[in-house]
Amino acid sequence: MSILIKNILLQQEITDIFIEGNSIREVGKSLACTAQKIIDGKGKAVIPGLINGHTHAAMTLARGYGDDIPLEQWLNERIWPYETNLTPEDVYWGTKLACLEMIKSGTTCFCDMYTYFDSTAKATEEMGLRAVLAATMFDYFDKKQAAAVKQQMLNCFGRKKKYGNRIIFALGPHAIYTVSTDSLRWCRNFAQENGLFIHLHLAETQSEYNNALQQLGLSPVRYLHKHGLLSPRLIIAHGVWVDEEEIRLLADYGVSVVHNPNSNLKIASGYQFKYEEMKAAGITVCLGTDGCASSNSLDMIETMKTAALMQKAWRFDATAMPAEEVLDCATVNGAKMLQLNIGKIAPNCLADLCLVDLNSPAFTPNFNFVSNLIYAANGSCIDTVICDGKVLMENKYVPGEEEIMQKAAAVAYDLMKKPTNVIAKNEANINENKDKRHNEQS
Amino acid sequence: MSILIKNILLQQEITDIFIEGNSIREVGKSLACTAQKIIDGKGKAVIPGLINGHTHAAMTLARGYGDDIPLEQWLNERIWPYETNLTPEDVYWGTKLACLEMIKSGTTCFCDMYTYFDSTAKATEEMGLRAVLAATMFDYFDKKQAAAVKQQMLNCFGRKKKYGNRIIFALGPHAIYTVSTDSLRWCRNFAQENGLFIHLHLAETQSEYNNALQQLGLSPVRYLHKHGLLSPRLIIAHGVWVDEEEIRLLADYGVSVVHNPNSNLKIASGYQFKYEEMKAAGITVCLGTDGCASSNSLDMIETMKTAALMQKAWRFDATAMPAEEVLDCATVNGAKMLQLNIGKIAPNCLADLCLVDLNSPAFTPNFNFVSNLIYAANGSCIDTVICDGKVLMENKYVPGEEEIMQKAAAVAYDLMKKPTNVIAKNEANINENKDKRHNEQS
Repeated sequence: MSILIKNILLQQEITDIFIEGNSIREVGKSLACTAQKIIDGKGKAVIPGLINGHTHAAMTLARGYGDDIPLEQWLNERIWPYETNLTPEDVYWGTKLACLEMIKSGTTCFCDMYTYFDSTAKATEEMGLRAVLAATMFDYFDKKQAAAVKQQMLNCFGRKKKYGNRIIFALGPHAIYTVSTDSLRWCRNFAQENGLFIHLHLAETQSEYNNALQQLGLSPVRYLHKHGLLSPRLIIAHGVWVDEEEIRLLADYGVSVVHNPNSNLKIASGYQFKYEEMKAAGITVCLGTDGCASSNSLDMIETMKTAALMQKAWRFDATAMPAEEVLDCATVNGAKMLQLNIGKIAPNCLADLCLVDLNSPAFTPNFNFVSNLIYAANGSCIDTVICDGKVLMENKYVPGEEEIMQKAAAVAYDLMKKPTNVIAKNEANINENKDKRHNEQS
Repeated sequence: MSILIKNILLQQEITDIFIEGNSIREVGKSLACTAQKIIDGKGKAVIPGLINGHTHAAMTLARGYGDDIPLEQWLNERIWPYETNLTPEDVYWGTKLACLEMIKSGTTCFCDMYTYFDSTAKATEEMGLRAVLAATMFDYFDKKQAAAVKQQMLNCFGRKKKYGNRIIFALGPHAIYTVSTDSLRWCRNFAQENGLFIHLHLAETQSEYNNALQQLGLSPVRYLHKHGLLSPRLIIAHGVWVDEEEIRLLADYGVSVVHNPNSNLKIASGYQFKYEEMKAAGITVCLGTDGCASSNSLDMIETMKTAALMQKAWRFDATAMPAEEVLDCATVNGAKMLQLNIGKIAPNCLADLCLVDLNSPAFTPNFNFVSNLIYAANGSCIDTVICDGKVLMENKYVPGEEEIMQKAAAVAYDLMKKPTNVIAKNEANINENKDKRHNEQS
């Protein structure tokens, strides 16, 4: 398949883009290429496909199911009962819905962390997106459970070849407060041997930080450092609670950090993300939406805006995180983190790109396209999405979108109706965990 | 004209709405009314038209013209030169563009503050929106200028009857650092005599607060109190820098406060807006976007989201400002502030309402419509807008929108090309002001 995009706005200039197979071949004025498909770019601009660095795709199913309530109640009464009943089919439809939402708002690549790897992989592959899919791992410091999840990881790893090149398997130890040191070390070794990414939540809340100090005698980053987890293949979601020395450590080991501003604000886990300090230290800072149970939307354009606005606000500095930089976080930095040839519109890059419809008040006037994109627009400006050289959306329509929304809603409503006695079980778990973690460390 | 909306979702129930003339007549299941126009509400929900409590509509023309730069540079090199060259025709097209953007994102009523009242009024009337339009007043502590702007106010006031009932004239003394005490008192008296609103910026930045203390010996709110400005007809934009006693004063005098979260964050003027304290004191807190030169977009749905997220974030409390409350700020509270019979879907209210398209990932699943609206959607979910009983938008299309965007962009680009020597003039002004203010107070 070849595609020629004619007369499109790219960095304040009108140009053509020629795509062949899954790559961008040429970028330039009035290209004399013949292509199987011609797209008229008039009145549109092109941006690299956005990269969502941290989400739990299938949690679209729990969108709006538990907002504005305290964390404990949210977990005990909503999320855990909900997740306990999840089936592979639910995860399949939840991921399809997430992919639909991501395509519609300009995301072509995402880093996921969730259960039922195969359901997620199948749905993503069908939807045409590129993804690093981390199979989640919880052992709650229980040796039997640790053995079982390791076996699960090995099984998923074995099956990863079933999926095409767009699907990349990763390890997803959930967090340092839900996974034992033993299992984290196992992840470290397995990731090293097989060139895999490790994707985990870290330093998200102050209580996580304080608990680590109290229970492990080390802050979250220092604890991972002690056990040899820090590396360029480690992807940290959040990283809100880190000090200067920890930023230095993350930078020295080439660890990437994914900032999830909407989630951090909405569940009140911390708003003073140290973007400027991380940038100065040389850390690759990316952006993510987190899952829809915590941040509700997968719109990366909105995420970029919140990130930029929050940096300016808490620093009292209107010049912090300018529009061009925040766009880099969601494109070139994401590509660097995932070691993929994406995030740019240039010859020989993979053809992951979006066409933006300029025919709206958000782009009127259009003195500065990037500024309008970040500060005035939202995901609805995306008109056309191409990933790996294939057109996934044209004229704001994704083939089959009605069925995906219908099926996903149906499985979500069914899930809520299922009886559950998980509340007591999970409360017990929290208390047990403290003891087990204590035993593990002593 | 009569309109019957059939089978629409209203507060989790399917209902019909009958509109006659400019009012809602009936709300109920399976209404047996005949109407000149029938709207099928299937797959849609209805919300009251949103109320944007503070903007400078015509500043859409400066969208994206000066982002990510320090305040002084923004004013001296961008905004002031730009505004000095503004013509009535520019303001007319800028306001048309703003109205278009507001209609497209569900706003049916707005409070404006800008120059060229007639241009703003004409554009707003033509676009079909409801508005309280404050004619801006600056005197920079200069007696000649004060006399001239008072005369301007009187002229505008005299011409206000040219416009229909949807257009409400108000006084817009810009701020306490640009308007003399004399002129503020004149506004107080003139507003009292004629039942007008006074709309001014107050307590927006910490430097404004500190300067007031230093130059006037009083904080901004206490200064207004001393001069008898506090009243239920006073609309304060921002109110970020206020203490407990000032909140009490505002509440006692029935002053309304308009919170502009995106503007406050983007230009780094303060993020700890004291919503919970103001609510507890009984203040009517509304929401606004501010003008597009500072906050870039007029989307009130996005504004509601930022307001809610920011309250949760800085208080470290995920339960702060829940979705239902933030929607109230943009509807019933706005109506209360403006003393208008809007902001609700109920018999005998003015027919200002919006139909929301539920056919999108943001509303899938739809466990909680308001939660999805605030946390997952954005202005692009608005399908149909009715204001004062007239349909302004249907199927996301506003008649004439292409011409409005074209003309507004053209005048904006022309404006930028105009030569200007305003920089020196305005810098002089700032220094002069300090002396004049000092002389006035001593």
